[in-house]
Amino acid sequence: MSNWIKNEDNISNVVISSRIRLARNLIDYPFPNKLKKEEAEEIMKKIKETIINGNTVLKDEFKFYKMDELDEIERKIMVENHLISMDLANNKNAGVLIKNDETVSIMINEEDHLRIQTLFSGFKLDEAWDIADKIDDILEENLNYTFDEKLGYLTSCPTNVGTGLRASIMIHLPALVELGYINGVLNAVNQIGLAVRGIYGEGSGYFGNIYQISNQLTLGRDEKEIIGNIIGISKQIIEKELSSREILKNRLGPKLEDRFFRSLGILKNARLIDSKEAMNLLSNIKLGIEMGYIEGFTTRDIDSLMIQIQPAYQFRLYNSTNSVQRDMNRAKFIREKLSI
Amino acid sequence: MSNWIKNEDNISNVVISSRIRLARNLIDYPFPNKLKKEEAEEIMKKIKETIINGNTVLKDEFKFYKMDELDEIERKIMVENHLISMDLANNKNAGVLIKNDETVSIMINEEDHLRIQTLFSGFKLDEAWDIADKIDDILEENLNYTFDEKLGYLTSCPTNVGTGLRASIMIHLPALVELGYINGVLNAVNQIGLAVRGIYGEGSGYFGNIYQISNQLTLGRDEKEIIGNIIGISKQIIEKELSSREILKNRLGPKLEDRFFRSLGILKNARLIDSKEAMNLLSNIKLGIEMGYIEGFTTRDIDSLMIQIQPAYQFRLYNSTNSVQRDMNRAKFIREKLSI
Repeated sequence: MSNWIKNEDNISNVVISSRIRLARNLIDYPFPNKLKKEEAEEIMKKIKETIINGNTVLKDEFKFYKMDELDEIERKIMVENHLISMDLANNKNAGVLIKNDETVSIMINEEDHLRIQTLFSGFKLDEAWDIADKIDDILEENLNYTFDEKLGYLTSCPTNVGTGLRASIMIHLPALVELGYINGVLNAVNQIGLAVRGIYGEGSGYFGNIYQISNQLTLGRDEKEIIGNIIGISKQIIEKELSSREILKNRLGPKLEDRFFRSLGILKNARLIDSKEAMNLLSNIKLGIEMGYIEGFTTRDIDSLMIQIQPAYQFRLYNSTNSVQRDMNRAKFIREKLSI
Repeated sequence: MSNWIKNEDNISNVVISSRIRLARNLIDYPFPNKLKKEEAEEIMKKIKETIINGNTVLKDEFKFYKMDELDEIERKIMVENHLISMDLANNKNAGVLIKNDETVSIMINEEDHLRIQTLFSGFKLDEAWDIADKIDDILEENLNYTFDEKLGYLTSCPTNVGTGLRASIMIHLPALVELGYINGVLNAVNQIGLAVRGIYGEGSGYFGNIYQISNQLTLGRDEKEIIGNIIGISKQIIEKELSSREILKNRLGPKLEDRFFRSLGILKNARLIDSKEAMNLLSNIKLGIEMGYIEGFTTRDIDSLMIQIQPAYQFRLYNSTNSVQRDMNRAKFIREKLSI
């Protein structure tokens, strides 16, 4: 294997982002699906005050947003930025606290009263866990969580009972897809109790060869075990992806370089492009950067661009509902971003 | 119709080149297919001396090449440059006189003893005829042509008997092809006695939407009539091509611009490209330039590039017989030409 494969940067680059989510509920209220409007408001106020008006270290680091005070586009962009879920976006009695650097969001009245989420770029699941755990501790000092000695944290959906933890990584696997190994890998991942989804949820397909891997069970294991498990499996997948890139390089020779640069040429020149095609071309460019063919951009530049070309983000930029106009604007946006 | 359609430049740009060919034979020899080697040599010497060592105005303007003194690649490039035919290239007893600016070539011992050819870029059939006619007059003063009072010039193949003239234009018809009007147009052209072929002869297909239109008959009409006929028909085809471009523009809107720039992006970035794909992308770029979308190149730049990317020209440049290597070199060559 080439040297670049063993490079720590490359291992981290395959992982676009690492996320931890903790589900928590307050003892004095029914679960969100049974909440009255006033109770929902009370919970939002309580949690907001704990963070923003309280005396914790988190005091000045968060902003609070109520869903019914945001317009549709603002909410959709939060979804595209992975700060909130689609369910939260569609719930008028919900809110979110977002850390200024957007690495932490605390959803209120989603499926559970609280969903603490940390999100880091790269392969940083340990770091994401540490932060989530600290915020959880601070909140727990100020709020009464529902907790059962035997079961652990109680949650609205039984699959979250226990640690209430969902740990996930977003991973870019273009070589496994191209060589047809991806289904075998995903089946193996499923069989050891992890879930795999497209980047914007189950209905969204797998644009750009990006997959989300997360734990399915949270009961009967401790957090370190769950996270250690995902990290271990991810390392195996990353290794297989990196060795597949080497196979691809040997198999395709100059055709691989050709593909990378054609993708770049199209993105730098297209006048009209939909998000699906753009994602797939950006996936090629990301791989081209990581394999050392394309220079002048970092793989993180491309990760950001992948979020910025999504429909709602583009709508906020250009305020257009016409899809042809949006595809024109997207093409222009990408040309400008790539012509630096 | 937009103004650009009526622009003289645009009418001329649709026509890549204009060519006149006159077939002549010497009275004292059998036709080339019956020639002995020594006779063939004698004819070459005679014609060469008339032009190069004679006292005509053509004296210093031509160079003589014997086919058996050129290597295969040199001969193929002459074919790609439309200076000689494939038949001449494969005939060891043949030669050619080529004018320094490559607008005139006089093939010796092809199907006829003499084939005087003039080739100009753009829609210049009248000009090409004037030059060919003048050279023919100069040669006729010094050589004894086979000529029959009733039939005209006698030639090896009966289809050339009469004026011995073939007038042709190479024409770029991308909009007629895309709108599906091309077959109707070509059928009509055939029915009025003109022939249509791909740019490198009948077996070469129609890469790059380029067609050659020429007269089939040379008997019973005078030269001016034949040429006038081709010019008239060509103008009608050009008009239909230009109005089809307008239809395409209205029908495709931003998709058309998108296609032009994607083609440019691919050619400016590809690392591997075969001549067929390159021709089709260059056809898009040529159209994009002529319709005012792409700037920085002239349509004649693209015409030259279309010749330079052909296999033999590329071989001379890079001396490679490996087709992958040739496609890599071609891609590099195009990138450099387009990155000015």
